[in-house]
Amino acid sequence: MLFISLEGIDGSGKTTISKMIKDNLSQKGFKVLLTREPGGETFAEDIRQMILDKKNIITPWTETLLYIAARKQHLDKVVIPALKAGTIVICDRFMDSTSAYQGYARNVGMAEIDEVQNIVLGSTKPDLTIFFDITPKEAHIRLLKRKRKPDRLESEDSVFHEAVYEGYQILISENTDRIKVVNSRKPINEVLQQVDFLINDALNERLSKND
Amino acid sequence: MLFISLEGIDGSGKTTISKMIKDNLSQKGFKVLLTREPGGETFAEDIRQMILDKKNIITPWTETLLYIAARKQHLDKVVIPALKAGTIVICDRFMDSTSAYQGYARNVGMAEIDEVQNIVLGSTKPDLTIFFDITPKEAHIRLLKRKRKPDRLESEDSVFHEAVYEGYQILISENTDRIKVVNSRKPINEVLQQVDFLINDALNERLSKND
Repeated sequence: MLFISLEGIDGSGKTTISKMIKDNLSQKGFKVLLTREPGGETFAEDIRQMILDKKNIITPWTETLLYIAARKQHLDKVVIPALKAGTIVICDRFMDSTSAYQGYARNVGMAEIDEVQNIVLGSTKPDLTIFFDITPKEAHIRLLKRKRKPDRLESEDSVFHEAVYEGYQILISENTDRIKVVNSRKPINEVLQQVDFLINDALNERLSKND
Repeated sequence: MLFISLEGIDGSGKTTISKMIKDNLSQKGFKVLLTREPGGETFAEDIRQMILDKKNIITPWTETLLYIAARKQHLDKVVIPALKAGTIVICDRFMDSTSAYQGYARNVGMAEIDEVQNIVLGSTKPDLTIFFDITPKEAHIRLLKRKRKPDRLESEDSVFHEAVYEGYQILISENTDRIKVVNSRKPINEVLQQVDFLINDALNERLSKND
């Protein structure tokens, strides 16, 4: 029905807010599915374990293909059926993460990843992507408060996370219609208000198209 | 130095013969690496386990991407370094397997897989590919004598294996310079003789190019 992806660097608050978005939309009477990548489906979660396990030594392209492999399975078995059943799908990370993290920060190439994702994923793309904007330095301070150990990607150094942020800036500038930026440094209620506004806009646009 | 891939349906005898080819070339004084796909490298072998495990439910494109992910890691960490060190690399299955099994038999699309493999694998392709020709029916009789249980791919029905064989026929007709067919129904010594002839040819061509 409406496909929303949430993007941002680790510590940007997108996962916390995603639950609130879901509750808000459910209260308004919408069917909502909150899911995440990598993972969101039995076998895709197995791939997730593999990618994030710190003991694994994975070359950049192989890491990229594992993300896209998990994404394709999640898309076909979870996202598309839900959309067809009239559900709003909110996905914590989707194709832009691969472009920013692997394409730009790991130097695999954003254009190459774009080509592969176009071939593999087909026409189902997010109607709206919300980028939770916070600098890597600000995010780092938040992450220090987390109790669990960082995974293989989170453990990368600050140069990597700065590059991911830069990669996202490129994606935002190239996809102004789809990717909307919210200021994630603000108090959580204000962030949620910004997000609500964007989703309402996207819902109205979707409903007017169906008229 | 010289990159040879071996292709064929399961039961075509390629794995048995690959060891003999290696011994022959080693006796002639060549450095030889015999490797296999999926796998051939620590993390690529982990991906292999995942693909072949019968408990896993994997969509066709995801299966395809896992094969290419394992291939890229194997290529970068094992095959290319060996070739650079002057070694003859013999690889039991390579990119054509994905085109025949997933591209054709699983209907993912040979052209689509070709595009993705071109982007991901770059310019390193086999100098010579030997196809061990035997029909699926003949191979099936051989496979009945195997003691180990069939894996997820081997367990597919005869329609699937017929389609794989058809896929290979398309690849052979489109790559007559690179893919050479040997008659794998013949006694093993005769098959080995055919293979020896093809490899000598490829070696001579390689050496004349270096002159």
